[in-house]
Amino acid sequence: MTAKSFHPPVRTLMGPGPSDVSPRVLEAMARPTIGHLDPAFVGMMDDVKGMLQYAFQTKNELTMPVSAPGSAGMETCFVNLVEPGDKVIVCQNGVFGGRMKENVERCGATPIMVMDDWGKPVDPNKVEDALKTHHDAKLVAFVHAETSTGAQSDAQTLVKLAHDHDCLTIVDAVTSLGGTPLKVDEWEIDAIYSGTQKCLSCVPGISPVSFGPRAVERIKNRQSKVQSWFMDMNLVMGYWGGGAKRAYHHTAPINTLYAFHESLVMLQEEGLENAWARHAHNHQALKAGVEAMGLQFVVDEAYRLPQLNSVTIPEGVDEAAVRAELLNRYSLEIGAGLGALAGKIWRIGLMGSTSNQKNVLNCLGALDAVLSDMRAPIKSGVAVAAAKAVFAE
Amino acid sequence: MTAKSFHPPVRTLMGPGPSDVSPRVLEAMARPTIGHLDPAFVGMMDDVKGMLQYAFQTKNELTMPVSAPGSAGMETCFVNLVEPGDKVIVCQNGVFGGRMKENVERCGATPIMVMDDWGKPVDPNKVEDALKTHHDAKLVAFVHAETSTGAQSDAQTLVKLAHDHDCLTIVDAVTSLGGTPLKVDEWEIDAIYSGTQKCLSCVPGISPVSFGPRAVERIKNRQSKVQSWFMDMNLVMGYWGGGAKRAYHHTAPINTLYAFHESLVMLQEEGLENAWARHAHNHQALKAGVEAMGLQFVVDEAYRLPQLNSVTIPEGVDEAAVRAELLNRYSLEIGAGLGALAGKIWRIGLMGSTSNQKNVLNCLGALDAVLSDMRAPIKSGVAVAAAKAVFAE
Repeated sequence: MTAKSFHPPVRTLMGPGPSDVSPRVLEAMARPTIGHLDPAFVGMMDDVKGMLQYAFQTKNELTMPVSAPGSAGMETCFVNLVEPGDKVIVCQNGVFGGRMKENVERCGATPIMVMDDWGKPVDPNKVEDALKTHHDAKLVAFVHAETSTGAQSDAQTLVKLAHDHDCLTIVDAVTSLGGTPLKVDEWEIDAIYSGTQKCLSCVPGISPVSFGPRAVERIKNRQSKVQSWFMDMNLVMGYWGGGAKRAYHHTAPINTLYAFHESLVMLQEEGLENAWARHAHNHQALKAGVEAMGLQFVVDEAYRLPQLNSVTIPEGVDEAAVRAELLNRYSLEIGAGLGALAGKIWRIGLMGSTSNQKNVLNCLGALDAVLSDMRAPIKSGVAVAAAKAVFAE
Repeated sequence: MTAKSFHPPVRTLMGPGPSDVSPRVLEAMARPTIGHLDPAFVGMMDDVKGMLQYAFQTKNELTMPVSAPGSAGMETCFVNLVEPGDKVIVCQNGVFGGRMKENVERCGATPIMVMDDWGKPVDPNKVEDALKTHHDAKLVAFVHAETSTGAQSDAQTLVKLAHDHDCLTIVDAVTSLGGTPLKVDEWEIDAIYSGTQKCLSCVPGISPVSFGPRAVERIKNRQSKVQSWFMDMNLVMGYWGGGAKRAYHHTAPINTLYAFHESLVMLQEEGLENAWARHAHNHQALKAGVEAMGLQFVVDEAYRLPQLNSVTIPEGVDEAAVRAELLNRYSLEIGAGLGALAGKIWRIGLMGSTSNQKNVLNCLGALDAVLSDMRAPIKSGVAVAAAKAVFAE
């Protein structure tokens, strides 16, 4: 075969991630590669750690990006904190709780499942019941912001319940970090992982994690070795741990870390609270437009994530054809449903750089046009005006 | 804290990797991010797969980059092919054989170690003895090109021995791929992993792997689940497997894959045999200069890797001070020794884009100047001329 250089189309990314990456971040990533033990690189790693502590609102020393995507961030938390034979309470209200269950099982431990409907938050009462029944459980794991549905769970309450029953907590914050309030220290979260390609609008490929003092203690006192060499925090700490002396563990993804550094500089410039407010505001405008069209949200407003909007598909509409049309005609990507919601919803992301007025208006205009052309049962020609009214407030 | 945008210094990377990344690759990486399920992206993945098959000289369908660095590529091979209770013959003649042992143990299997001195190749006679003693062994694992020493082992012979005793093989080709002859199909290698930041001169962060038919068969017939969800090839195949229909597994490192695509296009343009010849030729020139100075190579010429030159440190010289001086005065990175060779050698990489005439001459000139200034016991002022003579041949 003979392949030529690849020139991707320019998209507007309004799916469940990746979100649009700022030219600043792309430019930073293209700077010259240096060695992973270069003193200049080591200084940059310290900056990344400090800014990531700010993003997570934590003072945890062990705060760093794992050198692989979000699912490896998840696995890093589980393989380090779970030992064979442990009981782990896993809350499932979407795809990613199911992936947590897989992780627990593959660690040779027993998952105790607490199930909630897709689109609902995790029910603290059910979690409390499980904790009372399984007083030998060691951990509670749940998803703060379910990317497959757009539902947000009450992390602070769930962590408190877990601690009341002597359990540590693992929290999935892939879609919440940088988009909605998340306070690792105030909420006393023990271990947390996230992604870079959602509300931080960095390229995908690395996964920010943070481990609190109780989690570090448990890792240090494990009876068995961590089953993954690559993800063993005892070893990773030697490279990312404080100080100028870094022990080689693996070759860090240098240029992706340049990109991540720049996205964190941008977050710092905007301010975390301002970023949260921007995500909330743009959601209000999108919501006004979507509802004016007569479409429904899957998730109740009380626990809906502003950055991930799950919208039900109007009757008789070929949802894949709509997405294809948006992509081909408008170079606009929105997401399909996953798992139990496959074929039933679209997921419209307003994450990170994607979350701005222009995208809200363009997306509503495009959706309105495509659905009207397909004679879908919606109210045409009103969505954009409804959103504009919110922006004009 | 308030960090500013990071602007790395421009280095010449002549350590054990990362090697210098071409501006073409950096530019490709900075192209706009698109979704990991975008039809345009899926087409690019097919190109990457085809070009990677060429680089590995294989028709293996299951040929793709793992979304994490080389050590995760290693772990991917082990967790998929090893089951608890298995016996695995692990050949160690440097750092990375030791890491293989760690992987085997963490899979709940028993490593049978075949030890050779650092700087020597793996001894096939010892491997044969181990195979005869442990006729219940399931796998033989060895490093083709030891990055910690610069020694090359005879992969074809070792694979044949393994097959004669009904064992599959896992081969570490992190430093050989693209730099020295490597023929996966002709040598009948069953599973192989490599890195992108060595002789392919791409950024670090992903790890090319390839699994042959016997390995795929073994993965499909496992008794136990693969202990890593992230690295489970049964799941990864659903995303990277042929055809337009891709099942979401994890978010691919989109922009790093753009970079990798471009580095493979460059390899294809040069031609694999030409790339091997270039690495060999530049080594001859470096060697002439190094030997003219009176310095010694750790590895005998018969099995020395041209892309990784381990040179012994002249008596009385502070090796770290020399590296610091090269970095500060010439912005030139060379590598330190690892493990048993820490403090005893420098590792001078001539990998990928780094392997060119200019770098050979500059490196020799800089090393000559720094060592002369430190009054090291070397022959001054002759190294560059010796290398020039080779280039003039």
